Amino acid sequence: MSTLNEIADLVGGKVVGDGGVSIIGIQSLGEASQGDISFFSDRRYREDLEKTKASALLVSTVIDSFNGSQIVVSNPALAYARVAGLFAPSPPGFSGVSEHAVVQKSSKIGRSASIHPMVYVGEEAVIGDDATLYPGVFVGDRVRIGCKTVIYPNVSIMCDCVVGDEVIIHAGTVVGSDGFGYARDGVKSVKIPQIGYVQIDDQVEIGANNTIDRAALGKTWIKRGVKTDNLVHIAHNVVIGEDTIILALAGISGSADIGREVIIAGQAGVIDHAKIGDRAMIGAKSGVIKPISSGEVVSGFPTMPHPLWLRTRKLLSRLPELNERIRELEKKLELLEKHHEKP
Amino acid sequence: MSTLNEIADLVGGKVVGDGGVSIIGIQSLGEASQGDISFFSDRRYREDLEKTKASALLVSTVIDSFNGSQIVVSNPALAYARVAGLFAPSPPGFSGVSEHAVVQKSSKIGRSASIHPMVYVGEEAVIGDDATLYPGVFVGDRVRIGCKTVIYPNVSIMCDCVVGDEVIIHAGTVVGSDGFGYARDGVKSVKIPQIGYVQIDDQVEIGANNTIDRAALGKTWIKRGVKTDNLVHIAHNVVIGEDTIILALAGISGSADIGREVIIAGQAGVIDHAKIGDRAMIGAKSGVIKPISSGEVVSGFPTMPHPLWLRTRKLLSRLPELNERIRELEKKLELLEKHHEKP
Amino acid sequence: MSTLNEIADLVGGKVVGDGGVSIIGIQSLGEASQGDISFFSDRRYREDLEKTKASALLVSTVIDSFNGSQIVVSNPALAYARVAGLFAPSPPGFSGVSEHAVVQKSSKIGRSASIHPMVYVGEEAVIGDDATLYPGVFVGDRVRIGCKTVIYPNVSIMCDCVVGDEVIIHAGTVVGSDGFGYARDGVKSVKIPQIGYVQIDDQVEIGANNTIDRAALGKTWIKRGVKTDNLVHIAHNVVIGEDTIILALAGISGSADIGREVIIAGQAGVIDHAKIGDRAMIGAKSGVIKPISSGEVVSGFPTMPHPLWLRTRKLLSRLPELNERIRELEKKLELLEKHHEKP
Repeated sequence: MSTLNEIADLVGGKVVGDGGVSIIGIQSLGEASQGDISFFSDRRYREDLEKTKASALLVSTVIDSFNGSQIVVSNPALAYARVAGLFAPSPPGFSGVSEHAVVQKSSKIGRSASIHPMVYVGEEAVIGDDATLYPGVFVGDRVRIGCKTVIYPNVSIMCDCVVGDEVIIHAGTVVGSDGFGYARDGVKSVKIPQIGYVQIDDQVEIGANNTIDRAALGKTWIKRGVKTDNLVHIAHNVVIGEDTIILALAGISGSADIGREVIIAGQAGVIDHAKIGDRAMIGAKSGVIKPISSGEVVSGFPTMPHPLWLRTRKLLSRLPELNERIRELEKKLELLEKHHEKP
Repeated sequence: MSTLNEIADLVGGKVVGDGGVSIIGIQSLGEASQGDISFFSDRRYREDLEKTKASALLVSTVIDSFNGSQIVVSNPALAYARVAGLFAPSPPGFSGVSEHAVVQKSSKIGRSASIHPMVYVGEEAVIGDDATLYPGVFVGDRVRIGCKTVIYPNVSIMCDCVVGDEVIIHAGTVVGSDGFGYARDGVKSVKIPQIGYVQIDDQVEIGANNTIDRAALGKTWIKRGVKTDNLVHIAHNVVIGEDTIILALAGISGSADIGREVIIAGQAGVIDHAKIGDRAMIGAKSGVIKPISSGEVVSGFPTMPHPLWLRTRKLLSRLPELNERIRELEKKLELLEKHHEKP
Repeated sequence: MSTLNEIADLVGGKVVGDGGVSIIGIQSLGEASQGDISFFSDRRYREDLEKTKASALLVSTVIDSFNGSQIVVSNPALAYARVAGLFAPSPPGFSGVSEHAVVQKSSKIGRSASIHPMVYVGEEAVIGDDATLYPGVFVGDRVRIGCKTVIYPNVSIMCDCVVGDEVIIHAGTVVGSDGFGYARDGVKSVKIPQIGYVQIDDQVEIGANNTIDRAALGKTWIKRGVKTDNLVHIAHNVVIGEDTIILALAGISGSADIGREVIIAGQAGVIDHAKIGDRAMIGAKSGVIKPISSGEVVSGFPTMPHPLWLRTRKLLSRLPELNERIRELEKKLELLEKHHEKP
């Protein structure tokens, strides 16, 4: 529970109305009841705004029609992110190494780290201070995990991988599985041992059931601030630049080099060795098969500039009509030609 | 082992031929041998019917060419489903809480529940009567799991999620991972704490390695009777109506609102906040980017009515020909125009 | 550490230069330093070749511009695969059954097998000699696992499945989950018990977080030498022929019959009951909805011959232009027609 004044301090906002109101939760406009704070930053929720029962709002400009108190901030979505943290359920209250975990003696566990039951930590691994490993986490030999990093249940981090500080890895994800590399010996596939590793830098967040392959040689590298959604595949030797975002079910093939602040939308695919420049945006379901320059916004398979894609995709459903028009033209033209041939 | 008469009783069918035959297994027409019952409901298997060695058949109308006994039922596929249950291998015979499981004392375990080795159950969780948690299952704090629900190995159910009665969740699935929500602070992504939960209603079946995100606020809601295939992604705040079916590798983006009895085929994608009406059908690999009305059958990316898509997709491979015909028309027209200009 | 002569013996190559050089690691051309061996088999890395600091190279023909020693082999990629094995990190040094594993007494564990902590092995299972089960692996009742097979962490192998010799299954994968099979009872989906199993033959390698469903009846069959990438879905009753390769995020629907030495690229989908002939190649993001003959190379959705797809996909982005040209033709033709009607 906080007062509205305390929340305004937290988000650097200005209270309009009664700052002494007690806030006991945060909810969407539609779900909020007495005592909740809510937020308005997306016009799609205008109707909800009129009917909301929230006691207070985070807004960018004062909403005259709202009766409760308001906190005016420049970025309500960002303020919401901060306030939601006040009401998040506390993580399982456990610190130390569970007697039901198996930690090899050559490993080092940081101060106040939480090693839950059924965690396995291999030889010569290093787990940072205040890190949390949920039940079922596998940490391979010589893995290093940074401070304040949270690894959710049933995540597997294979040997020699390096995970930075304040990283979050959601349940079921695999870091450091072998890259898909084979040499052909006739029709047989001979496995190329994958002797590289994965490096995940600070403040990265990896979604659930991702697969991030270790490099064949050298490293697969996920740089600071990258965020991936669920079921994302990142192949061996891929490099992903700072603050890049990858949405669900996207697949990045081997040795692709993705710049910083790139956005790759859901179910998109990137060919091996592709180069994508900083701040590029790759549309949903796209297939990137050629280099994308910095700042380019592309969609489609193969990718084209997004505005062209918007026009193209409209015409897709008009193909039968275009076909009909061509046939019509052919008929008419034939008729005209016949007329002409006649003397 | 059952007699054919007993099986006929089970499925409400009528025996034609000898009802005293002992049935020891169920197999497809092609694989069945002496003592097996099989079924015929799909014309694609006509050839197998002629050669089958099955001792008995489930059919919708008597097959004159078949020598063995037959059970006539209105829905042979449904009868097959019931009979197969007779021959399913029994689940691991274990009831109670394994000494190799870790269950926090504040949790309640139902009567005859099976808590296998290496299961973790957090604080204040409730596990229903006759529920089965296979090895490696993680159950977070305050999770509630209904009666007769089966959770297969290495599934993670994060804190505060609610799972109904007679639910099946296949191995490796994650329920309640954080939704993919960030506020922008310049180029940085600031995490929006995901403080909602996931609610899975009765008789839902979730495939292997699915990811179902908890809501940002409120709940992600999978309603009664929903069935998902493998590797399905369901984002935060999605609502999926009763008896809807989602096939493998499909992705449903945040806050999408899916009706009841909808079918979403494999590798389809649904944009965030999309609305899909009851009984709509979404084709494989489609991309839904606008509202779909009840009963609509759509395909393509973006989606169009399915019959139009069938015509459109045929023309895709004829684009080079269409292009050629346009060029031809242009040439001929130019020629005609020249003729005309001549006096 | 090996001498170059020893490495040449291993790969059946011929040393050009000093064969006594000590080699302490293998690296890509760009990353190699003093003491490393590298390899050159892909022209894309020509620039790296000029600048490499490697002490020795695996090559197919002598590179005159390179100062160090060289091993000439007919297939440098294959030689690299073999040499990399010399420098791969050794697996966790553990053999026997961990006291933190749970193995039912009716199961048999092979000689020198490694059953790591937190492994569960059910009733009447058989684990082959020298097999390795990493922490968090679930092995169901009556499962058989062959010799020298490696099962990585948090893999679930459900009851009755059969895994051959020298198989590798990467972390998080599920083998033997129920196939997606329901009979309709009005709008309700009645589960068809999936009482078949999965058979994985020798020398198969399955990527991370795959899902391979058990057959409804009979078996889902992954034949010798098949390799799958990450997040691949294989439905019930699928058969995949020897040495076939399936890339990430591809989905194979129920009862599809895939030949040998087939290549299915990333994010491709194959419809149920599809038949794909030997040595066919299916392009990335394709959707196979009809039979593909042996040796065919196809792409697109629906699939078409790959060369046609290459022409078609170029025209996709030119649709607005084609539309414009049709409109132009219509205008001109109308004009001509008017002229004609005039006397």
